[in-house]
Amino acid sequence: MIAEILVENATVITANPDFDILETGFVAVCDGVITALERGTARDAGVDARVRLDAAGGIVMPGLVNAHTHLPMVLFRGLADDMPLATWLSEFIFPAEQRHLTAQSVRAATRLACAEMLLSGTTTCCDGYFFEDQVAAALSDCGMRAVAGQGIIDLPAPGVSDPARNVAHGAAFLDRWQSPGLNVRPSLFCHAPYTCASQTIQAAKATADRRGALLQIHVAETRGEAEQIREAGQMSPVAYLNSLGVLDQRSLLIHCVWVDDADVEIIAGSGAAVVHCPQSNMKLASGVSPLPNFLSAGIPTGLGTDGCASNNNLDLFAEMDTAAKLHKVYRADPTAAGAAAVFKMATIGGARALGMDHLTGSLEPGKSADLVVIDTQQPHLVPVYDPVSLVVYAAGGGDVRDVMVAGKLRVRNGRLTSLKLDEVLGEIAPYTEKIRKDLLSS
Amino acid sequence: MIAEILVENATVITANPDFDILETGFVAVCDGVITALERGTARDAGVDARVRLDAAGGIVMPGLVNAHTHLPMVLFRGLADDMPLATWLSEFIFPAEQRHLTAQSVRAATRLACAEMLLSGTTTCCDGYFFEDQVAAALSDCGMRAVAGQGIIDLPAPGVSDPARNVAHGAAFLDRWQSPGLNVRPSLFCHAPYTCASQTIQAAKATADRRGALLQIHVAETRGEAEQIREAGQMSPVAYLNSLGVLDQRSLLIHCVWVDDADVEIIAGSGAAVVHCPQSNMKLASGVSPLPNFLSAGIPTGLGTDGCASNNNLDLFAEMDTAAKLHKVYRADPTAAGAAAVFKMATIGGARALGMDHLTGSLEPGKSADLVVIDTQQPHLVPVYDPVSLVVYAAGGGDVRDVMVAGKLRVRNGRLTSLKLDEVLGEIAPYTEKIRKDLLSS
Repeated sequence: MIAEILVENATVITANPDFDILETGFVAVCDGVITALERGTARDAGVDARVRLDAAGGIVMPGLVNAHTHLPMVLFRGLADDMPLATWLSEFIFPAEQRHLTAQSVRAATRLACAEMLLSGTTTCCDGYFFEDQVAAALSDCGMRAVAGQGIIDLPAPGVSDPARNVAHGAAFLDRWQSPGLNVRPSLFCHAPYTCASQTIQAAKATADRRGALLQIHVAETRGEAEQIREAGQMSPVAYLNSLGVLDQRSLLIHCVWVDDADVEIIAGSGAAVVHCPQSNMKLASGVSPLPNFLSAGIPTGLGTDGCASNNNLDLFAEMDTAAKLHKVYRADPTAAGAAAVFKMATIGGARALGMDHLTGSLEPGKSADLVVIDTQQPHLVPVYDPVSLVVYAAGGGDVRDVMVAGKLRVRNGRLTSLKLDEVLGEIAPYTEKIRKDLLSS
Repeated sequence: MIAEILVENATVITANPDFDILETGFVAVCDGVITALERGTARDAGVDARVRLDAAGGIVMPGLVNAHTHLPMVLFRGLADDMPLATWLSEFIFPAEQRHLTAQSVRAATRLACAEMLLSGTTTCCDGYFFEDQVAAALSDCGMRAVAGQGIIDLPAPGVSDPARNVAHGAAFLDRWQSPGLNVRPSLFCHAPYTCASQTIQAAKATADRRGALLQIHVAETRGEAEQIREAGQMSPVAYLNSLGVLDQRSLLIHCVWVDDADVEIIAGSGAAVVHCPQSNMKLASGVSPLPNFLSAGIPTGLGTDGCASNNNLDLFAEMDTAAKLHKVYRADPTAAGAAAVFKMATIGGARALGMDHLTGSLEPGKSADLVVIDTQQPHLVPVYDPVSLVVYAAGGGDVRDVMVAGKLRVRNGRLTSLKLDEVLGEIAPYTEKIRKDLLSS
């Protein structure tokens, strides 16, 4: 057999259903798809290839899936930290969004975010924001696999000045991006139960459903939200969404911090998926989600960085490390959220949550060649007793050597291959300079 | 003025008493010491130099201070994770230490740890372990600034088979390394109040005191320890140490998780310093220390990674990020443990805790040139609205471009200058292979 690309001399973490780890193995790729993945050498298996990528004894693993982010918010990275949520939102983030988001700035910011994701091993992401056509176009240009969700909120929003048009605006977005050949799938992103009326959420869900699209929604993020929803209708935020009939296998519930056992049952019964964003929940002091309960209930659960204004990067390696450690200390149980469980969340779990597990999230023959090579010839990655532990607890986004999305090498030896870093940094500079001037004059 | 080395075109985070940040500045170095540090260009200030280091608009900051670690435990990185503390210690770590620690393996492991620390921007560390002569020699060879603490425990220990000789062994270590010219200072490290008798702790303190050395001790790390000490003497672990008369400005109290307001008062009144190790405390599910109380009480407080068996790396950037986020969510207060407070812990705070703040921990004329250059021309480090936020919340150890210790460039363009990476990795391999074989046969 002659493959197009052969990644060899690797410890392969497959994230397949048996969570197989091949101590010495290879991955063969043709037409963007994994055609073989085996223990031993390609030579012994009779596989040759036009392009050979020597992993040099490093780790090959599925590309990471960032199941919740707001990519253009890289514009606001470090703009405002260490302050109460209300001040942060009303005095910094909302005004900055109103003043500085344009189709152009969103496009440039998304390209910057794509560069960051690719360099740190993320091959798939799920975004929710405004000017989402620009986000989707940039994701597509940059070669990412993605779900792009047009934001819906019952307030005047960037690019959607009339809230009465928000769902119609979203529907048009879905129609424009409804092409099964694209690696970028459209979706709708309702901001939250406290910023979208029940009718808005239901209309958005119906609109998404008609096109087979995912509905994303922030839910039960803060104690204040949970109290507000409970006061209004004697229900938890999750029970409230359930009462609206909007929870099913194409619903992505983001955060789910303030949920109780009954909520977990509702989610599990509905088939909806959850995205856990531990660093954002910590930084904004939102609380700690009952992640182990989601996992034991079999709820499809992904890992997300959230936007860069509340993290402040898109590094899923750091997010895995934090997730694994946070639940241990929170539950006083060192066995909680083990390395393998967290690794799965950041790969196959996220893919499953996004309805993409037939395509990505694990290394298996027939799936897309979305993979990452980690260079382990570095002091902090030696020794390798357990490659999964190494990835979760010792590695960082900076350790990614090569990245492939759909069989295309997007990062080689730590450098972007199709994006020009200088250009990406140059494109964003005028917008961030303007924001900086605003900051100084305020 | 002609400097030896000039680091220019930088945003300089000084960590000086006013926490000055120079938006465009330079640092001039002669004979290992900072001779000038100013806003503007060196040319305008009339400073020339033999060697010019262009920071290319990046960040120059003090070298980081890892105030608590067990360097040779890099041997056990990823050996055992996600298990209860007792199982982890008794079934994995203690047996591995008994079987695999030798003068040779400790030396090789410390060199690996030094490579990791230097590459991730740590210029000073405080170690506590066994075979500490080897640790101290390796730290010195590698050009680190350090406190090296010979371990003392009332059990047979690596290199100290007879516990009755543990303090005498430590005294001899102090004498061998008592040379004021060395960048490595000797210290004693009593393991913990529950593994060292009161007489041992008092004898160690007296021995250290006679030589002006620091006494390090793990204290109040776990709930179990706190309960055990309280049952034995109706006192908290901190109150117990205080009752032994061993708390003063040359006492370094590591962890301090299970401490109450009275304990904080005792520590503040004694002049003792604290080291906070959030990632280790999370991973082992030990608990969350009342860090904000230490800071508000004015207790000298440093940041530590702890050993690589409970972290699993020596990256202080990740540790800063975790510290800042953990206390926010734990206290439900997004203003807790702000970026600047955490940055100070990892620099001047740690230096003060180690009694080295006259030498290192901040960039000020007259202090040692221990500094780090961060390359900010990377997608995840753009934009830079607040350089301290960027360092704490967005950067990682992999973003370090250059590292200087005592005016000597130890890392240049992300590569070690005086250590050979291949050699360091080659030296450790026989020991880690032996440990791996043990693992497989058990």
